[in-house]
Amino acid sequence: MRSFTVSAAVAAAGLASFTTGQTFQRLESCPTLGCVLPPDQQDFLAGQYFDIRLEVHAPVNGSEYTGGSTTPDEDFTFTIGKVGEEAVPAAELFGLEEPEIESWSFSWYEDLFALDADKPSLVNVAAKAYRRVALYEPGEYLATLTYNNGTKTEAYWLVRDIEEVRKTKNVLLFIGDGMTTNMITAARLIAHKQINGRYQSLMQMDQFPVLGHQMTHSLGSFITDSANSATALYTGHKSSVNALGVYGDSSPDPFDDPKIESIAEIFHRVWGGHIGIVSTAYMADATPAALTAHTRDRGEYGAVVDSFLNGIVNYTWTSWDGPEVLFGGGAEQFCSPEDGGETYMDLDYYQEFTEAGYTVVTNNTALQAASSDDRLLGIFSTGTMPVWLDRNVYLDNLIDQENNPTCDGSDATDIPGLREMTVKAIEVLENRSGDEGWFIMSEAASVDKQMHALDYDRALGDLLELDDTVKASVAKLNELGSFEDTLIIVTADHGHGFDVWGNVDTRYLNEQDDDRQKRKAVGTYERSGQSGYVNTGSLVFGDSNFPSNWDPRYTLAQGFGANPDHRENYQVHKNGSRTPAVELEEDSENYYVNPEDSESGFVVNGTLPTSFAQGVHSLTDVPVFAMGPCQEAFGGVYNSIDVFYKMAGCLGLSRPSGPENGDDTTGKGGKGGHYSGKGNWNKGHQGVKGYHQYNEHSPRYEGKGHWGHED
Amino acid sequence: MRSFTVSAAVAAAGLASFTTGQTFQRLESCPTLGCVLPPDQQDFLAGQYFDIRLEVHAPVNGSEYTGGSTTPDEDFTFTIGKVGEEAVPAAELFGLEEPEIESWSFSWYEDLFALDADKPSLVNVAAKAYRRVALYEPGEYLATLTYNNGTKTEAYWLVRDIEEVRKTKNVLLFIGDGMTTNMITAARLIAHKQINGRYQSLMQMDQFPVLGHQMTHSLGSFITDSANSATALYTGHKSSVNALGVYGDSSPDPFDDPKIESIAEIFHRVWGGHIGIVSTAYMADATPAALTAHTRDRGEYGAVVDSFLNGIVNYTWTSWDGPEVLFGGGAEQFCSPEDGGETYMDLDYYQEFTEAGYTVVTNNTALQAASSDDRLLGIFSTGTMPVWLDRNVYLDNLIDQENNPTCDGSDATDIPGLREMTVKAIEVLENRSGDEGWFIMSEAASVDKQMHALDYDRALGDLLELDDTVKASVAKLNELGSFEDTLIIVTADHGHGFDVWGNVDTRYLNEQDDDRQKRKAVGTYERSGQSGYVNTGSLVFGDSNFPSNWDPRYTLAQGFGANPDHRENYQVHKNGSRTPAVELEEDSENYYVNPEDSESGFVVNGTLPTSFAQGVHSLTDVPVFAMGPCQEAFGGVYNSIDVFYKMAGCLGLSRPSGPENGDDTTGKGGKGGHYSGKGNWNKGHQGVKGYHQYNEHSPRYEGKGHWGHED
Repeated sequence: MRSFTVSAAVAAAGLASFTTGQTFQRLESCPTLGCVLPPDQQDFLAGQYFDIRLEVHAPVNGSEYTGGSTTPDEDFTFTIGKVGEEAVPAAELFGLEEPEIESWSFSWYEDLFALDADKPSLVNVAAKAYRRVALYEPGEYLATLTYNNGTKTEAYWLVRDIEEVRKTKNVLLFIGDGMTTNMITAARLIAHKQINGRYQSLMQMDQFPVLGHQMTHSLGSFITDSANSATALYTGHKSSVNALGVYGDSSPDPFDDPKIESIAEIFHRVWGGHIGIVSTAYMADATPAALTAHTRDRGEYGAVVDSFLNGIVNYTWTSWDGPEVLFGGGAEQFCSPEDGGETYMDLDYYQEFTEAGYTVVTNNTALQAASSDDRLLGIFSTGTMPVWLDRNVYLDNLIDQENNPTCDGSDATDIPGLREMTVKAIEVLENRSGDEGWFIMSEAASVDKQMHALDYDRALGDLLELDDTVKASVAKLNELGSFEDTLIIVTADHGHGFDVWGNVDTRYLNEQDDDRQKRKAVGTYERSGQSGYVNTGSLVFGDSNFPSNWDPRYTLAQGFGANPDHRENYQVHKNGSRTPAVELEEDSENYYVNPEDSESGFVVNGTLPTSFAQGVHSLTDVPVFAMGPCQEAFGGVYNSIDVFYKMAGCLGLSRPSGPENGDDTTGKGGKGGHYSGKGNWNKGHQGVKGYHQYNEHSPRYEGKGHWGHED
Repeated sequence: MRSFTVSAAVAAAGLASFTTGQTFQRLESCPTLGCVLPPDQQDFLAGQYFDIRLEVHAPVNGSEYTGGSTTPDEDFTFTIGKVGEEAVPAAELFGLEEPEIESWSFSWYEDLFALDADKPSLVNVAAKAYRRVALYEPGEYLATLTYNNGTKTEAYWLVRDIEEVRKTKNVLLFIGDGMTTNMITAARLIAHKQINGRYQSLMQMDQFPVLGHQMTHSLGSFITDSANSATALYTGHKSSVNALGVYGDSSPDPFDDPKIESIAEIFHRVWGGHIGIVSTAYMADATPAALTAHTRDRGEYGAVVDSFLNGIVNYTWTSWDGPEVLFGGGAEQFCSPEDGGETYMDLDYYQEFTEAGYTVVTNNTALQAASSDDRLLGIFSTGTMPVWLDRNVYLDNLIDQENNPTCDGSDATDIPGLREMTVKAIEVLENRSGDEGWFIMSEAASVDKQMHALDYDRALGDLLELDDTVKASVAKLNELGSFEDTLIIVTADHGHGFDVWGNVDTRYLNEQDDDRQKRKAVGTYERSGQSGYVNTGSLVFGDSNFPSNWDPRYTLAQGFGANPDHRENYQVHKNGSRTPAVELEEDSENYYVNPEDSESGFVVNGTLPTSFAQGVHSLTDVPVFAMGPCQEAFGGVYNSIDVFYKMAGCLGLSRPSGPENGDDTTGKGGKGGHYSGKGNWNKGHQGVKGYHQYNEHSPRYEGKGHWGHED
């Protein structure tokens, strides 16, 4: 592990300007006027492709304007060298031509007072980008941007010393989006029976031999979104909220930001590894997207879906020819625009995938019937797929959803769950991967989405579905004889501040007239008693992984510290997912208690800005459960980026001996045959400049404060 | 690990009566009218002493009264046998005379409606107790109570198969009372600096190699208090809220409940192991108390303190001659009543400890000066000791506390912290333990106490003090050459539903007039920015384990879902610990926002019953960090009781071969030389009946609903 000794120079650089930069930031990771992306203190896998972005900022007004020129210095220089050795210009190092200068302006607010007063600070920018480079030799590097007549921004980069040995053939990565230890504890309580303090069955996750915690904070803020955190998990680089597989620069173009190669891309390039992507979200959502997309704006859904099939096409990047399976929702980014699709370049992506050799399935029956020898695209609904509770208990909620994946406005009725999708994915990947092995990411997306809605039952139901999926996957791997070849990891990308503090006698609560009296229904400590969800009826021990009763008299007193205004009666929402808060005036962005939600309950006034309709992500470290070859790497406490380095190490993706050596030794037909470098440096190809066809898309989610974020 | 297969008979027994018994329970773990304590599904360490309590209940009214006799059956029988072998009467098995029948009555409420209507249900009881018995041979036992003409209550007991091999000489057990992963994450954020998403230093806990989670639920309710959870951690038996080292029976006597031997008692008896007890609470508080006390009522403070010195004296029990060190607060249970002490039997416990050979110290100077060759009693304040934040930052809060441990009404001014106490404890235990080894429990009590008060800063300050103490202890052990001999565990006993969801611009919040406007000061996601607590001033990296600024402009948006009515401005409480809610009418047990707390903030109405003045415990699994010999036992997810079995296994406390064999092979002068049994059964001594001198003490905390519980 890296020691935490820091040179005085770095420390001083890091402190400058932080008083204003703590929350409203001109540019994350750039407290000074010279910006290097990747910034100081970043780690790299040996041989991992990345882009470099340099920016020199010239404030025009605001607290940073010192009265001088408002034209940014275009004569900046940039060198890289191993610490203690000579630094050379980056273009020389990587064998690139010196990139052209780019220019733009942007504005930002310095704090809430400036925002209220609508007094933005304007900044002019001169910039450059070095595209698709790599570092191979492990060790610490110093990258230095020199601008404004000698001012320096220094970035210490570490290429981790990870050996090339491959320790696992396959990786099966489960992500419970937004899932915390607290939620797992609650899910266990409602689904697994206790007798006198002893559980009679356990979660599959509980039975994993190795446990870790990962810190989810992001590059410039301590709360992350799912784009940012997926980037950390898949690339080993923390980034910014809303960014997928890139560091966020200040340019208006969401497709020119400096990229970082993902584990899916590296595994595919280096070993010819096969990829499976499964999610209960719409496929363009952040957690699946970050495996192949590279954009500052996670809302660029069409481009995300294109990247699954075609990879990155606007710059020279890594080779990519699509995953073996792509299963989930979000048909609107696949259907032909004639059918109502909202697709990239107005293409029909069902058609695009079909032409690329995929078998397309749009319901569970077809999924099960499909040959596991073929590449499969399975899109089973528009938007996010219906949750477990609605698919299994409150089936009426599947009606009038107009979510058929054909986009014909009918209902999707024959829908697989995460378990069915994941088990099928394992079958296909096993059949198609041969010796190269596979990497599958399977996401339980609605743990997060339903927690945002304060719909605890639906969130915990989908968490239990995740656990059930893990259990079924273990069984499937055993059946196929691949269990010993597969590292299984179950983790999350961030938390929500959820916990349970007792029970609620809902009969008592509902019969009280007064809000203060209703609160008496909450039973704490010894009055929390036992779970009402498993103690009734004909529960079959060891067989059912779900509650036998979702609507018991004694429910859970549960929730968050961070809320919009809402009302709580702590009962299951039988008519579909919850809407806790609404605008009383349309488009006011001022949310109040939804008068139609939890009507028998008491009001809980919010703690979030009143522009928020839902809950938000939280700080807590999240658990990592590991089982299988290389599991021992995942114990203890570490950073989210370490999950990437551990997985990459287990898969043997590090190339500390350089590219030729790395490719030669793999002997697996690695797709990175276009390496042209020598020694320890990669002589990459300069990006195809000006190919900015994505520019027409504007960021879709900026400024929608009442959403918080999608997840 | 034990499989979770459960026989149909047990399952059926467990389900009866649960509809009424889920929260308001006649007697925990006894849904039928025949009660066996220890109940069904309990585990035992081979050779661990315990008592057995049998009760037969005869309801007089209420929903369980069926119209028959209201006299309980006194002719019940009780047998024990290994599953699949012949069962014999318990008295015969243990070589005891058949105990006499005891009788009492008690009443309970069946639910909140019955409570509101003041309609208690009355129960007559016939009971027996078998005192100080033990089981040695590993395997599953069936204990059967037969009553009411053939009705049976069956209890399956498991003597775990743990080998006798000792793997560690010493155990240093840290308990952060109420500490969760979420709190550790928040503490790290405010005390340790990040640059671009990389921490420049880490918590000591973060650097432990092995991580586990333990489930904290109790015997009959899913939320625990600290007495109950300490019992689980120290004895391997879950019990009931407010119970210390006993299962709770229904008798009115808080000192006749069936006991379970604690790890301190077993280690002392079997190996002559030496014990150290350190806490920042009053010494009689639950977490230190549960090492030696055995009472249904944690509020019996005087008796708890007596048990530290004299062990259990009202029944034949294990040998005990006091710990090597006892450090903490709570002078009121030590001072002579003439000086204002409230002590057991009106004794002067400073005098009692002195006469037993202890050196008594009452301030930090004396503590540091005391010889580490002597047994030490160190009592440094009345009540709970002042917290780190007041001892180190807001020193004025030490004034007018009238908490001098001499009970003279002056202030305690020369007070050690958890670090000073723990390091001294290590010195003494090292000097006095020789080959027998030692067990030290060191508790950071005010993480919990301050979280109850919603005083996040003080709670996190004491969590950081715990981490600082762990760090100093590692250094001390290395200095003394004992690091390799010592298993270090850091864990908690339960959680509070705390998390952080963003930052707060306190300047902005304070300048708004309206509650809804104030909420706009909360910054989520990218606007959470960076920690304001570490980014100012002259922080020395790697040296300071605490924030450099507790009152920054940008603070944390943090808190709970479970709250009393209160107001939040998210700023540090400079004038002492927080009182979030108050009664507007005295003794009304109806709490409202404290108008003098966080005056610039906005109101957050509560979610707890309005009789609560503070926050409450939560459900979440809590972390276990392990380092040292035998550390590998502590990875993964397990029950709180497993912490006991793992520690006991590491210390070689299991005696699967029976008592003689166990004693003979230790050769360490084990204090259990009064064993008289043979084969696999212990022929213990019957309890000294009628010695109930504690009866005069009434339970101190029953019915004080507004406290919730002490912790």
